[in-house]
Amino acid sequence: MSNSTKTGFRSRVLFATRNMNKFKEAFLILSKYNIQLDHLPEDKLEIQSDSLEEIATYAVKELASRYPNRNLLVEDDGLFIEALKGFPGPFSSYVYRTIGLSGILKLMSGRSDRRAYFKSVVAFVSPELGLKVFTGVVSGVIAEQEKGSQGFGYDPIFIPEGSSKTFAEMDIKEKNLYSHRGRAFTKFAEWFRNVMLV
Amino acid sequence: MSNSTKTGFRSRVLFATRNMNKFKEAFLILSKYNIQLDHLPEDKLEIQSDSLEEIATYAVKELASRYPNRNLLVEDDGLFIEALKGFPGPFSSYVYRTIGLSGILKLMSGRSDRRAYFKSVVAFVSPELGLKVFTGVVSGVIAEQEKGSQGFGYDPIFIPEGSSKTFAEMDIKEKNLYSHRGRAFTKFAEWFRNVMLV
Repeated sequence: MSNSTKTGFRSRVLFATRNMNKFKEAFLILSKYNIQLDHLPEDKLEIQSDSLEEIATYAVKELASRYPNRNLLVEDDGLFIEALKGFPGPFSSYVYRTIGLSGILKLMSGRSDRRAYFKSVVAFVSPELGLKVFTGVVSGVIAEQEKGSQGFGYDPIFIPEGSSKTFAEMDIKEKNLYSHRGRAFTKFAEWFRNVMLV
Repeated sequence: MSNSTKTGFRSRVLFATRNMNKFKEAFLILSKYNIQLDHLPEDKLEIQSDSLEEIATYAVKELASRYPNRNLLVEDDGLFIEALKGFPGPFSSYVYRTIGLSGILKLMSGRSDRRAYFKSVVAFVSPELGLKVFTGVVSGVIAEQEKGSQGFGYDPIFIPEGSSKTFAEMDIKEKNLYSHRGRAFTKFAEWFRNVMLV
């Protein structure tokens, strides 16, 4: 059965990201829902804000002005460390490129409160369906040192609740069971499948 | 002599900032050039970029879409620490609000290379004169501990070249002699006075 025939709108979705790891994680989830995810290797416009929702919403709207008549997705995420007032938060990518994991571990040295959470915001827009935002959160702690070599970004220093391993010690399928991004994309997929099947 | 009479365009300039300290620093400089600076207490749109020039240019253009037919100024600045690959850079304000001065000092503990610079970018736009960008830089070092109580932001931990005092140990007039913001606004003022007098 072709969804596009049945519903009249395209079931293909274009995901704008420069990060192939993110694309692979999302592709794996959406394929379970028979949603075809295409890769748009293009920079999105990111504003400075303490709110990931605001950043992702602005980005997907700006993208829609360049790619009208498409199903568009952007995703933004961040690591929020309680003892550091949410730092690095929405600026996780910049902080990773500058002070890096060793900088985070240095800032956390001597701290007993190591609680942190990853948050992912997926923003979708299409002419037919409008704007929708989906969030996923995973709580955990900052490890005492880097562990594991899989994944990317802060994965080697984040241990999700319910596990004793860092994200970097998990393969992509195990990580997706826990991960904020997995949760946000799963919410999107369930919603999108439903509207496709209406 | 009224410049606006002579040249046909307004000599009043609107500076969009939420930071009254920045406004005072700029006002003091521009008044020496007989430029009337008005305060627009409004948020500017800041994009995420490693380039202050890009951030300020985007912001002043967006502002011009809301305030057409005005002389508009925005300013963005950042502290760039060499040993931290430029961190906190364009995200200095967010980093100040989260890990703060103590976080920076912790990241710098045990480091002998303490070189850093402040950079300020002033972006101007008007219908008559178009877009112009002015930069000011001041080199210095990160202090071993916080000193002084004047100024704002990173002033207590930055010692400019040629001084043994932090910015926070200087009054606003002395700071303006050194400061990146002082230099950028002085460049703007010299240019703007010249075009007013043409």
